[in-house]
Amino acid sequence: MYDLAGADDAVRFSPYCWRTKMSLLHKGLDFETVPWRFTDKEAIADSGQPRVPAIVDGGKWLADSWAIACYLDDTYPQNLLMGDGSARALSRFVAHWCDASVHPAIRPLALLAVHDVAHEKDKVYFRESREAMLGKTLEEVCADQSGARANLLKVLTPAEMALSESNYLGGAGPCFADYALFGSLMWLRALHGDAPLEAGSALRTWFDRLLDLHGGYARKAPTAA
Amino acid sequence: MYDLAGADDAVRFSPYCWRTKMSLLHKGLDFETVPWRFTDKEAIADSGQPRVPAIVDGGKWLADSWAIACYLDDTYPQNLLMGDGSARALSRFVAHWCDASVHPAIRPLALLAVHDVAHEKDKVYFRESREAMLGKTLEEVCADQSGARANLLKVLTPAEMALSESNYLGGAGPCFADYALFGSLMWLRALHGDAPLEAGSALRTWFDRLLDLHGGYARKAPTAA
Repeated sequence: MYDLAGADDAVRFSPYCWRTKMSLLHKGLDFETVPWRFTDKEAIADSGQPRVPAIVDGGKWLADSWAIACYLDDTYPQNLLMGDGSARALSRFVAHWCDASVHPAIRPLALLAVHDVAHEKDKVYFRESREAMLGKTLEEVCADQSGARANLLKVLTPAEMALSESNYLGGAGPCFADYALFGSLMWLRALHGDAPLEAGSALRTWFDRLLDLHGGYARKAPTAA
Repeated sequence: MYDLAGADDAVRFSPYCWRTKMSLLHKGLDFETVPWRFTDKEAIADSGQPRVPAIVDGGKWLADSWAIACYLDDTYPQNLLMGDGSARALSRFVAHWCDASVHPAIRPLALLAVHDVAHEKDKVYFRESREAMLGKTLEEVCADQSGARANLLKVLTPAEMALSESNYLGGAGPCFADYALFGSLMWLRALHGDAPLEAGSALRTWFDRLLDLHGGYARKAPTAA
């Protein structure tokens, strides 16, 4: 699996790569990660697209954390990531919610830190592509850190409500929807050492539970902090 | 089923009551609605709480659209509203998303109109309770209609993304999550004659599909417009 890294090989901050690592762990599949940088387009050219996560499974290339999750459930039916048809569709909704609602709230807390930890060869590409996408400088996006933290918690309210009623978004056990949101928050943990969740909240308890899952894989992951 | 009505018995605008009516229709259960007003607390006192939807099923009182949906799936296993455990938990997440993220975006488009259509005996209660909850007058909440419409579409982006990939939030068929969001938008339809969705959008197509479900029950519902 090709996994986005900073200048330090050990710092892995991509929310989408975290979705895929947790999915592979959930399935109990052995995998190896290869540190990859934004500008290493050639290394994954055989995947037919320019982004990670990309995986090679027995010679077959796959990319995109959602497509990979569907492939894993369809190919390795043990420990389903999404269960039946409606659970798959609803997990997809949660992943879209992370992308369209949670990530805009995380960017002000993440983008300058990504720029700081990025490999030298990535810094210009990263700044130019993000500033073009957002129409602002990274410094403008990240100007109000405490406002951004408060806004993130507000956006996360539906998850706080759901997790105050069950251990996982998937109910009694974790499902792809949990890994989608967990990946979003691992983005911040990889950069800052932790996700800015309120002590005693259902989200905090759930995040700690996921850090400990699968032998504590995520908790052991080095951070830039 | 006790169903919130305006001064006109036929105008039924509660998003939570719409969740329950669509759930009952989904199950293929016969039901009768009783028009109810905010201040008719005594009529539903036997439910042990002061809000609708409240239903009486063979002498048993139930309230709260989520509790009713769970009861219906547990008691009448035909046409499951939520399927297995993870689909139930994920449907609950979507319902919380409607309550915590979609409804704050709908209120500026709804609250003054609710006040206009409400029964005379409800108007003071409605204004005072909502203004206390929001810390603003209804007129202040509803001051910017075009900004509110744009914000609602932005908040709905995760649903637009999911529905551009499948016919329902539940995948190939509707599930409680669909009825949760549909109820939120029926709130606006009952008040204004339609929900402010973009022509050609996946949400528009999905909303029309749900209006036509179950014999076009929702499409036939009178509006205040």
